[in-house]
Amino acid sequence: MSELADRVLAGDIRAASRLMRRVEDGEPSAVADLQALFPRTGRSAVVGITGSPGTGKSTLTDRLVAGLRKEGRSVGVLAVDPTSPFTGGAILGDRIRMQDHATDPGVFIRSLATRGALGGLSRATGDCIRILEAMGRDVVLVETVGVGQDEIDIAQMAHTTVVVTVPGMGDDIQAIKAGILEVADVFVVNKSDFEGADRTVRELRQMLELRHAVRALPVEHDARHRAVRGAPKAAPARPPEAVGPAEWEPPILKTIAARGQGVAEVLAAVERHRAFLESSGQRAVRDRARARMQFVALLRERLLKEALGRLERERGRLEEVVEAIAAHRADPYALAEELALQIAEG
Amino acid sequence: MSELADRVLAGDIRAASRLMRRVEDGEPSAVADLQALFPRTGRSAVVGITGSPGTGKSTLTDRLVAGLRKEGRSVGVLAVDPTSPFTGGAILGDRIRMQDHATDPGVFIRSLATRGALGGLSRATGDCIRILEAMGRDVVLVETVGVGQDEIDIAQMAHTTVVVTVPGMGDDIQAIKAGILEVADVFVVNKSDFEGADRTVRELRQMLELRHAVRALPVEHDARHRAVRGAPKAAPARPPEAVGPAEWEPPILKTIAARGQGVAEVLAAVERHRAFLESSGQRAVRDRARARMQFVALLRERLLKEALGRLERERGRLEEVVEAIAAHRADPYALAEELALQIAEG
Repeated sequence: MSELADRVLAGDIRAASRLMRRVEDGEPSAVADLQALFPRTGRSAVVGITGSPGTGKSTLTDRLVAGLRKEGRSVGVLAVDPTSPFTGGAILGDRIRMQDHATDPGVFIRSLATRGALGGLSRATGDCIRILEAMGRDVVLVETVGVGQDEIDIAQMAHTTVVVTVPGMGDDIQAIKAGILEVADVFVVNKSDFEGADRTVRELRQMLELRHAVRALPVEHDARHRAVRGAPKAAPARPPEAVGPAEWEPPILKTIAARGQGVAEVLAAVERHRAFLESSGQRAVRDRARARMQFVALLRERLLKEALGRLERERGRLEEVVEAIAAHRADPYALAEELALQIAEG
Repeated sequence: MSELADRVLAGDIRAASRLMRRVEDGEPSAVADLQALFPRTGRSAVVGITGSPGTGKSTLTDRLVAGLRKEGRSVGVLAVDPTSPFTGGAILGDRIRMQDHATDPGVFIRSLATRGALGGLSRATGDCIRILEAMGRDVVLVETVGVGQDEIDIAQMAHTTVVVTVPGMGDDIQAIKAGILEVADVFVVNKSDFEGADRTVRELRQMLELRHAVRALPVEHDARHRAVRGAPKAAPARPPEAVGPAEWEPPILKTIAARGQGVAEVLAAVERHRAFLESSGQRAVRDRARARMQFVALLRERLLKEALGRLERERGRLEEVVEAIAAHRADPYALAEELALQIAEG
């Protein structure tokens, strides 16, 4: 094992930071270290925290960290942030957010930005979760902005997903319904001193009931979704009134994170969910879903790199291809197919 | 050419809807039609409209549609929505949003949901933009939720990107700074009768100045980003005071979309940007960036499908792989590498 991997296993924050930076940059040299660490991963509780911008989810995350530290548990935080490279936003963010926990070695916070496009974010997040696990962190919190597909992919790398919303954002509820609802294990209505908090709670409850009702129907979309999710949370043919003990009912909790109100209840709900996963055998299901998502993210990036690398090596061939498509001399469907076949044929 | 493609070219909305559904479902049979249509694409003005949930961007989009119709221009709208499959949210959304324009054949609105994960959204969006172009729509509006990487990818498929924000969301400005700033051609501060609108305008202006200042530095990250973007919007070595006529200064506009206030100014800014792209030669640069993004999205999905299909064909091999990773008997890095090599070797 490399010295760097050894130091990560010993919990060295500098070593972990260095490896994470290489992961983020997509450096191939990181892979050997990640492989060395992998057998020592899988023992942390991975908790996703997601919500739209403006819901106060960073504040909530910071309060959860404080609460976990009071219980004596070590924490790693990944703040996944589709940050523009030139602003250096992620680094600045780290500095601001570290202030409260700067002197506490039991807390390790890192922002993870996207470098370039092409879905590398899911892959990098999966790798960084593994690094925090290898460091021996009891709890890994993964904070994401809950609307893009990348973010939904990332939520599937968590054992427990907390979805944060605020009162009075009709569109926001829409956005939750749109995609993230399925992966929510705990709902938080933050800023619950704002007008409309109770209405938001009611709307969320109705959405959960709708989820039950729809799941009671054997629809094609549901089956497709579960095939991707890999972890059905509810038996599809079971009506709402027949919810059994093996089924998790996502609680809806009100908080005012800025004042610390309701934070203990969120931690308690996360802990109850963890216990539920263990007792129901769902932890293994989640671990498989995580494994699948990480594998697919790795494979996807690896294949695309191979393909683009090949085009680049053929001296400017990518530019030629792009030029031909832009000028409508060639169609992108045929070109993508041709390149994929070339790769398949070696 | 197939009958379906012929009908799409004739502007038939039913035919276009049918093809879009097949595109969304990732049906291979759609490819032949897309290929047939491709030579007839590229003449529309593609305008991206992006912003966090709650910014009123759907309302603004609807008002822009009304304004474009008054000018006699035909419009296609893609509302890209990371919707959960089981809610049928996208279809419901279409129905609600069609009301205003239901009897107008000059408006075609379609919501595009993600089916499954794995980055298929960018590919499907690229295809659907092409379909709307082939239908001969003068303007194609692509509405996205502006925070995920997918959404930033999609913004790069537009000629002009409008970024919508609202007053008083500190985090929201953060989210804009984070990633989407680079692709913004027009900023809109919607709900500008709310407190803090002027402050938000000021903050945006400061961010734009920062962008200039940072671009004046030859930093590595900037170079990397531009390499991905494929379309630098500003000469990197030029200080802000030396902004030349070939450079676009994103305007910051205040609107109250719900009352139609300021909407004409947004349309005028979009039109000015279109004229700028033509006169500066930037339109060709954008067309190449679009071509690149669409090609890469196609290639990425094609390669992943090939790889996963191969695993599936080897009777449950994917499940075995996932199981081995979940149980830590094998590491995902080695397995992804192995499979990628197998594919490269045919």
